[in-house]
Amino acid sequence: MNAQPSLQQQAQQLSESVTRPIPGSHKIFVPGSRADLQVPMREIVQSRTPTLFGGEENPPITVYDTSGPYTDPQATIDLAAGLAPLRARWIEERGDTEQLTGLSSAFGRSREDNAKLDAVRFPSRVLPRRAIGGANVTQMHYARRGIVTPEMEYVAIRENQRLDAVRDAGLLVQHPGQSFGANIQTIITPEFVRDEIARGRAVLPNNINHPESEPMIIGRNFLTKINANIGNSAVSSGIAEEVEKLVWAIRWGGDTVMDLSTGKHIHETREWIIRNSPVPIGTVPIYQALEKVDGRAEELNWEIFRDTLIEQAEQGVDYFTIHAGVLLRHVPLTAKRVTGIVSRGGSIMAKWCLAHHKENFLYTHFEDICDIMKAYDVSFSLGDGLRPGCIADANDAAQFGELEALGELTKIAWKHDVQTIIEGPGHVPMQLIKQNMEKQLHECGEAPFYTLGPLTTDIAPGYDHITSAIGAAMIGWYGTAMLCYVTPKEHLGLPNRQDVRDGIMAYKIAAHAADLAKGHPGAQVRDNALSKARFEFRWEDQFHLGLDPEKAKEFHDETLPKDAHKLAHFCSMCGPHFCSMKITQDVRDYAAEQGLEEAGALEAGMAEKSAQFREQGAQVYRIE
Amino acid sequence: MNAQPSLQQQAQQLSESVTRPIPGSHKIFVPGSRADLQVPMREIVQSRTPTLFGGEENPPITVYDTSGPYTDPQATIDLAAGLAPLRARWIEERGDTEQLTGLSSAFGRSREDNAKLDAVRFPSRVLPRRAIGGANVTQMHYARRGIVTPEMEYVAIRENQRLDAVRDAGLLVQHPGQSFGANIQTIITPEFVRDEIARGRAVLPNNINHPESEPMIIGRNFLTKINANIGNSAVSSGIAEEVEKLVWAIRWGGDTVMDLSTGKHIHETREWIIRNSPVPIGTVPIYQALEKVDGRAEELNWEIFRDTLIEQAEQGVDYFTIHAGVLLRHVPLTAKRVTGIVSRGGSIMAKWCLAHHKENFLYTHFEDICDIMKAYDVSFSLGDGLRPGCIADANDAAQFGELEALGELTKIAWKHDVQTIIEGPGHVPMQLIKQNMEKQLHECGEAPFYTLGPLTTDIAPGYDHITSAIGAAMIGWYGTAMLCYVTPKEHLGLPNRQDVRDGIMAYKIAAHAADLAKGHPGAQVRDNALSKARFEFRWEDQFHLGLDPEKAKEFHDETLPKDAHKLAHFCSMCGPHFCSMKITQDVRDYAAEQGLEEAGALEAGMAEKSAQFREQGAQVYRIE
Repeated sequence: MNAQPSLQQQAQQLSESVTRPIPGSHKIFVPGSRADLQVPMREIVQSRTPTLFGGEENPPITVYDTSGPYTDPQATIDLAAGLAPLRARWIEERGDTEQLTGLSSAFGRSREDNAKLDAVRFPSRVLPRRAIGGANVTQMHYARRGIVTPEMEYVAIRENQRLDAVRDAGLLVQHPGQSFGANIQTIITPEFVRDEIARGRAVLPNNINHPESEPMIIGRNFLTKINANIGNSAVSSGIAEEVEKLVWAIRWGGDTVMDLSTGKHIHETREWIIRNSPVPIGTVPIYQALEKVDGRAEELNWEIFRDTLIEQAEQGVDYFTIHAGVLLRHVPLTAKRVTGIVSRGGSIMAKWCLAHHKENFLYTHFEDICDIMKAYDVSFSLGDGLRPGCIADANDAAQFGELEALGELTKIAWKHDVQTIIEGPGHVPMQLIKQNMEKQLHECGEAPFYTLGPLTTDIAPGYDHITSAIGAAMIGWYGTAMLCYVTPKEHLGLPNRQDVRDGIMAYKIAAHAADLAKGHPGAQVRDNALSKARFEFRWEDQFHLGLDPEKAKEFHDETLPKDAHKLAHFCSMCGPHFCSMKITQDVRDYAAEQGLEEAGALEAGMAEKSAQFREQGAQVYRIE
Repeated sequence: MNAQPSLQQQAQQLSESVTRPIPGSHKIFVPGSRADLQVPMREIVQSRTPTLFGGEENPPITVYDTSGPYTDPQATIDLAAGLAPLRARWIEERGDTEQLTGLSSAFGRSREDNAKLDAVRFPSRVLPRRAIGGANVTQMHYARRGIVTPEMEYVAIRENQRLDAVRDAGLLVQHPGQSFGANIQTIITPEFVRDEIARGRAVLPNNINHPESEPMIIGRNFLTKINANIGNSAVSSGIAEEVEKLVWAIRWGGDTVMDLSTGKHIHETREWIIRNSPVPIGTVPIYQALEKVDGRAEELNWEIFRDTLIEQAEQGVDYFTIHAGVLLRHVPLTAKRVTGIVSRGGSIMAKWCLAHHKENFLYTHFEDICDIMKAYDVSFSLGDGLRPGCIADANDAAQFGELEALGELTKIAWKHDVQTIIEGPGHVPMQLIKQNMEKQLHECGEAPFYTLGPLTTDIAPGYDHITSAIGAAMIGWYGTAMLCYVTPKEHLGLPNRQDVRDGIMAYKIAAHAADLAKGHPGAQVRDNALSKARFEFRWEDQFHLGLDPEKAKEFHDETLPKDAHKLAHFCSMCGPHFCSMKITQDVRDYAAEQGLEEAGALEAGMAEKSAQFREQGAQVYRIE
């Protein structure tokens, strides 16, 4: 840290590449029922259809926006100050929490007192809040008492993506979906959000100590979400890099971000990330607990773990992966696997169980954990410590044994009104994917499923964003609520910035393909708009409507770099004199002109027009 | 061409990057029933398991090899001479063909006589063969007469990939597949190949004028194949570049290559490609026919098209895309589509039909085309001229009307014993994919389906290799026999070399995921071997067993570049002191030692061992 600028200085210097506005769109705010409820979205502006194709206006397309203020040229970013605490007033208003006078965790206090950490510490001290005297402050608890919170209204507005405007414009045309029993709504109301959370079918991960977060919802009756993992390890990367990765990940569409750091300064890195994150942050607390015992799993105990949970809950972590379903009886079931236990958390707990010949302390202390969760509204992400690490191990007794245990734990969490999602898959061949979803719905009472991939083959290291996007799209269709991304570096190394972008894109594709297939109302609006733009050679609109406008333009420019080509009614694939889109327009103009859209009409009216068409040079369409 | 080296000179200079041997494997030849039947495969050598994990030998894994002699360091490559005519003797032996004294097509002769083309012409003149006096020389014709050709035996050996060795070694362990009615065999016999070809359920595309080709088979009861498109257009690329693209495409696993050139020198480019291609080559003859009438579709006629078919058949094209199913009555059905007709061939024929108000001449002359196909053994790839170009247009009346027409045409082709595959999809959301497969099987009598993607969403320009790999994997699982790749540049520009590699990798993944899901015997062998290598930290083996060993190593080296790291029993994701694989090995060693693999045994035997385990430091595994 000596010769380099301090972290606080570095943090001011988010590179322009992660913050520049997304081309062709701007931020809008959709108001809710109160002045401080303004839901940010991204409005993609379209140009007019060329006169040739009809000359009509094309309405803007609204998409929800995970990028926070970072892509807003109006916003002032100060990483050392953190984001504005958007939800602070809502939390205070409820009157069931209080600001503490200091940190409750011993570890948190020791970090605070350590002057050596000044150089890496987030500069503004934030005192945590906690429920007053045993109160339950979870969104599930409110939901079950019939309360619609501002957070619930927020996500309802957000999920709708201004669909009413689309419906009024007659653009809500799409194929019927196949939803496998999901309860897809035409319009998402705040009351529906409340009901889904109350039933446990959806989760709104919003720690009261993360008031900077913009509420989002995870459940199979809502849009499919994706998670991006960031985090350093002993081998690589530092704090500034991780914060920039966060901003980068949400730029491209990460709905939540998990901080999986295992290296030094976990605590400080996390503080920087949370204070600057508009999306929910998840962690795996056992990673940090393990560092506290110098990597010796057998020395873990409930007290250390408990202190870690409180430490992180008071920082504002929105959901915890807890590997409480790795039971003593499951461990030997992994012995004959091709790749054993591949989850880090799972292997830590397995090792602990073996060393002590005791039941997993996360399982035996599960209700104690619930008590912590409900004091801060941290959601459970019940970890799949025994997920299969290769095709051979898919859907085996270990995996499904653990899933059954997670079902039991879900019921306990719900007894405490603690929000819960269930982690799943790993490596699963296509024909075995559906069984995972069906069993999860059955065992876990429709609690949201949150799956890594699944990877549908093991043979493509370097391309596992693709092997897994295939499985992710399918399991998303079947009902998984959130897809945990996999980057191209999976199994090979830590993802760099390009890998993160590639992983997120693959997963935004999978999630959207799932939404289309389930038949979410309006899911096809963006597809329709992009395809219409494509057909009409509105190149810029095509780029802007895509998931990655920058990449699309860059690719187009490789072959046709001139600005004039953005207006060209041809593309590089076929060149200016040969274009199927052009020829189609002939067909369309002709059929429309003659009222021949129906098959029968053509047969009747065609003969006399044929000669005339040829006389016109069979070139109805001309480049202007 | 003036200041530059001649094409003949350029062609000598295939870059090292496209021809260097694939790391960790070597070419082997599996002998058939006759001395000149030697089926090339790639044997991936594995190292021994580290002593720590058992120390056993790991057998080599055999995969089929599309790369021809280019990756063989023993081979001498002379592009100006072309590849050795491997099948020449087999063709001659049948005694039903003769070598002509000159080209039969007027266009071919005019190119031959044009001295201006000397600089771009393939230097060795090859006289074509043709069936003698109306004989039928298709593999289907032989198959139906009960003849097992050397080509059939060749593909049987190739499809088996030396599975017997794997079975004998006890490594044929995999999940049951779900095949949707496919007739998956335990062992592929030459007789099974014959029978599948006779029924029309498989195609062996092998023009008698492409004796350089290594036989391969396309059918849903065989391994799923992929096609890579190459080809220049008016805007880009030349002959040398296209030949290098061919070699590049087959290096990564293209099973067939379609030459979709539309620019100048189509004829000459094709000759270079075919003479140097070990894989079947497909074309869309209407592209070239259109050039002959200066791009005016309405001036096309049967005579020009017929001459083009003969021209290309005598060069050795193995399959022709023929858009004979675009019927006059279908054309108006596309008028209200969002993206109309997006197939170039489809739009050409639609324009022709409209201009003349006549039925598609490819349809009315279909039996004339069959007569040409059977004189050279060119296979039909019945084109999907009305495939949907966006999600909105999927599975509509135009698409399915054409598919029904293709079903009729299949029956006519089969009457002539002409081999036939059916082209399909385009853009189709997941929930509508299966209907495509089911309808194709029904309408087309189980003729092999050959689909582009399908792309499962329109909103990701720049990433359509992924949007489509999802659909391709699914439709492959459902029964599609060959998947036509889509590159990241789809909709945006012409693919460069990196795009071709990315497209092929996405499709090799999709095809393999489909094979696993269908339950092809041995499909999981490579997955199992790779995952075992991964678990045992055999890094080099893991790279070599992957679809792209070069990329895997490159990614690994980004974080851990040292050679020593290739032997390290950790990876960059978790660092040296924290590794789930390591911990799993503790579990495994322990359970095995104690005979505790079964769940019950653990409960019984564990208590007494627990203390002992802790005494050993709970670190059974140590880095050496």
